Amino acid sequence: MDKKIEPRKLKGFWELMPDEQILFSDLLSKLEKVFKQNCFVPLDTPVLEYSDVLLAKSGGDVDKEIYRFTKGDTDMCMRYDLTVPLARFVAMHQNELNFPFKRYQIGKVYRGERPQKGRFREFYQCDADIIGDGELSLVADAECISLFEKCFKELGLEVRIEVSNRKILAGYIEELKKSDKATEIFIVLDKLEKIPLEDAMAELQEIGLNAKECENIIKLTKNTGKIQKIVENLRNFCKNEVFQKGLNEFEELANHLEAFGTKCVVGNLGIIRGHNYYTGTVFEGFLKDGKDAVGAGGRFENLCGYFSSRNMPGVGMSVGITRLFSILTQNGYFKEKTNEVDVSIITFDDTLHAGLELMTRLRENGVMADCLYEAKSFKAKMKEANKRGVKYVLIVGEDEVKDKEYTLKDMQASQQEKLKFEDLIEKFAKNG
Amino acid sequence: MDKKIEPRKLKGFWELMPDEQILFSDLLSKLEKVFKQNCFVPLDTPVLEYSDVLLAKSGGDVDKEIYRFTKGDTDMCMRYDLTVPLARFVAMHQNELNFPFKRYQIGKVYRGERPQKGRFREFYQCDADIIGDGELSLVADAECISLFEKCFKELGLEVRIEVSNRKILAGYIEELKKSDKATEIFIVLDKLEKIPLEDAMAELQEIGLNAKECENIIKLTKNTGKIQKIVENLRNFCKNEVFQKGLNEFEELANHLEAFGTKCVVGNLGIIRGHNYYTGTVFEGFLKDGKDAVGAGGRFENLCGYFSSRNMPGVGMSVGITRLFSILTQNGYFKEKTNEVDVSIITFDDTLHAGLELMTRLRENGVMADCLYEAKSFKAKMKEANKRGVKYVLIVGEDEVKDKEYTLKDMQASQQEKLKFEDLIEKFAKNG
Repeated sequence: MDKKIEPRKLKGFWELMPDEQILFSDLLSKLEKVFKQNCFVPLDTPVLEYSDVLLAKSGGDVDKEIYRFTKGDTDMCMRYDLTVPLARFVAMHQNELNFPFKRYQIGKVYRGERPQKGRFREFYQCDADIIGDGELSLVADAECISLFEKCFKELGLEVRIEVSNRKILAGYIEELKKSDKATEIFIVLDKLEKIPLEDAMAELQEIGLNAKECENIIKLTKNTGKIQKIVENLRNFCKNEVFQKGLNEFEELANHLEAFGTKCVVGNLGIIRGHNYYTGTVFEGFLKDGKDAVGAGGRFENLCGYFSSRNMPGVGMSVGITRLFSILTQNGYFKEKTNEVDVSIITFDDTLHAGLELMTRLRENGVMADCLYEAKSFKAKMKEANKRGVKYVLIVGEDEVKDKEYTLKDMQASQQEKLKFEDLIEKFAKNG
Repeated sequence: MDKKIEPRKLKGFWELMPDEQILFSDLLSKLEKVFKQNCFVPLDTPVLEYSDVLLAKSGGDVDKEIYRFTKGDTDMCMRYDLTVPLARFVAMHQNELNFPFKRYQIGKVYRGERPQKGRFREFYQCDADIIGDGELSLVADAECISLFEKCFKELGLEVRIEVSNRKILAGYIEELKKSDKATEIFIVLDKLEKIPLEDAMAELQEIGLNAKECENIIKLTKNTGKIQKIVENLRNFCKNEVFQKGLNEFEELANHLEAFGTKCVVGNLGIIRGHNYYTGTVFEGFLKDGKDAVGAGGRFENLCGYFSSRNMPGVGMSVGITRLFSILTQNGYFKEKTNEVDVSIITFDDTLHAGLELMTRLRENGVMADCLYEAKSFKAKMKEANKRGVKYVLIVGEDEVKDKEYTLKDMQASQQEKLKFEDLIEKFAKNG
């Protein structure tokens, strides 16, 4: 064992130190709790899938980003999202599942893109979707938006959910007889916030819209505020059937949202959400004052089109949990060092077992007590407790064992007091 | 979208249906709770690692079982266990971590072996380890065994933990001047339960032991029972220093275990645990009357030998969670169908929003209520609730909304009663 291999992690792969991991795991647990409370069931699909299944959408084209390889004669890929595995699962089990099928999945996905700030090659997705059989009520859209709001409420975060319905813009584009260019137009509208207005106008004109049409469609995306108000204002804007259907759906959604008691939703026709996938309701969530979305979702026409001829519409939401964690870390959401340990126990040679017994009893009572059991001097153990940043040290010496009163030292206040077992339980229940 | 791709899952990859997944996720949560309570911190390493790092142990030899591939010019592997990634992590961060470092990790690992009953190509490992810096007290061994016991206690399962110390057998083999054959001898002793005695004797003689030595070493592995008793019985069996050290460690471990209050531990010198990795304490856990281990662990000399010249001994435990889940599913541990939903709400056209509001309030109060909101007839909704196996249906019609008393139907008893909101909360808090 003379030649050592340099221990290193693959570039662009996320790995947290334990104190951060505690915070991240806690976020995930909170989201999972919300999903369960709202009657979504968990799914845990394999990380690997057959390549033809995973790449069905792209007609088998290999995307450079995808981790694809063969083993034996099996051609496989690591999943790049949780939606295609959901589609595969639903298509496989379409005769066993109950619809609407409400599932959540929290899992790692893989994209071999160039690592850059805030982008990772392995990261978590956190999705919840409702899949219908043949049809799916707009109540499901409201349920997903409400679920998204509840996720952030559980995290104690103020969120602003901006909602649109893609049919409104699509209808207007149809009215302009430009449906064949809809994707290109959506691409421009999707970046309105990021590029100068004149550039957007120029791009839209290049696509074939005249100046008036450009102005109108951009004006359309500027409709924000109370959904019912937006709908009212636009009723006479355009007679197109799809446009009017979009308004109807938008209005119906707003009514359903009221029944769910959502409080953070506003209308914003500028929300586009990519190019083709979503067909009705679309939404993005932002933290207070935040400009980057921390999650999003929407309605799609048919989940399983590549696998099954049965029509399965769906609506979903996704929390961008990796990005959210970075933002929260930066903006001081996590106020204190995490509590890996409530109290470190320091014993002496002949009180080790008394200390271990006390530790065991404390843990049984919910106190995260940890005994520094390596054979070191008292001074070395105090130094170690300090290095670990523990708030309290419990000293278990001969006198303490005899009196059944233990010396609790507050490391910050440098104060100490003698406490019985019951007092310790009470103390840490309060501080817990 | 005319040509459909057959939706299918890779062979040998584990995937549960939602009702099973709820149970499995619940097992994992319980184990995680125990790890946290015992002051182990979480780690979540990437699924992919550099091949030279992951294969350091085998000197870069490619095992057929391992999923290895290149992307760009990076040669990488999917992890086949959680121990090598732990070693890589500890070696990378050896100057930042506090030792003893106590971490747990629950994650998927990959082995491309031939799929067979109870063996999967992707499955969960659930590990907890304590890593020391230079040295590590035997208290850590006791803590791991105690942790293992607590895991099963949390699951409500009776476990029997059989413990040995490898130095005892290793010392006797040294006494026989057969240390160069120790691995081969351990391989035979490891399968004593599975092959006829005469075959084992023959194999041992082939390795070079005479008949008397064969008998003695087999007799040694038959020592079972209270650890202190085994130690007492064997003190004069052999003067070898390693043998005596093994007895000392075994005895010390038993004393520490008493301080931890373990109740399910017995000594069994027949516990070998593979061939080379473990060097001191070894243990296996069995369910009551079970013959196959549902978990195991032990002490190893040096975790990071391939990556660092710093000596880092460790002790760990692992619950075979995938196998355990299969056993529990078969033996009826999971008595009832899981509660995906407490109650399904059935509304009519004009009471949909009243039903959704009621659902929202019930969920806020911890009741898993789910409204069947697809536009279907009352009869169709009742049929659907039945198909989903829900125990209760809550009917929200016009009268119910007016009176604020809702009709709760017990689907099994075919009884119904009228309940106010508060009564519903109480009802499901009791039934929950």
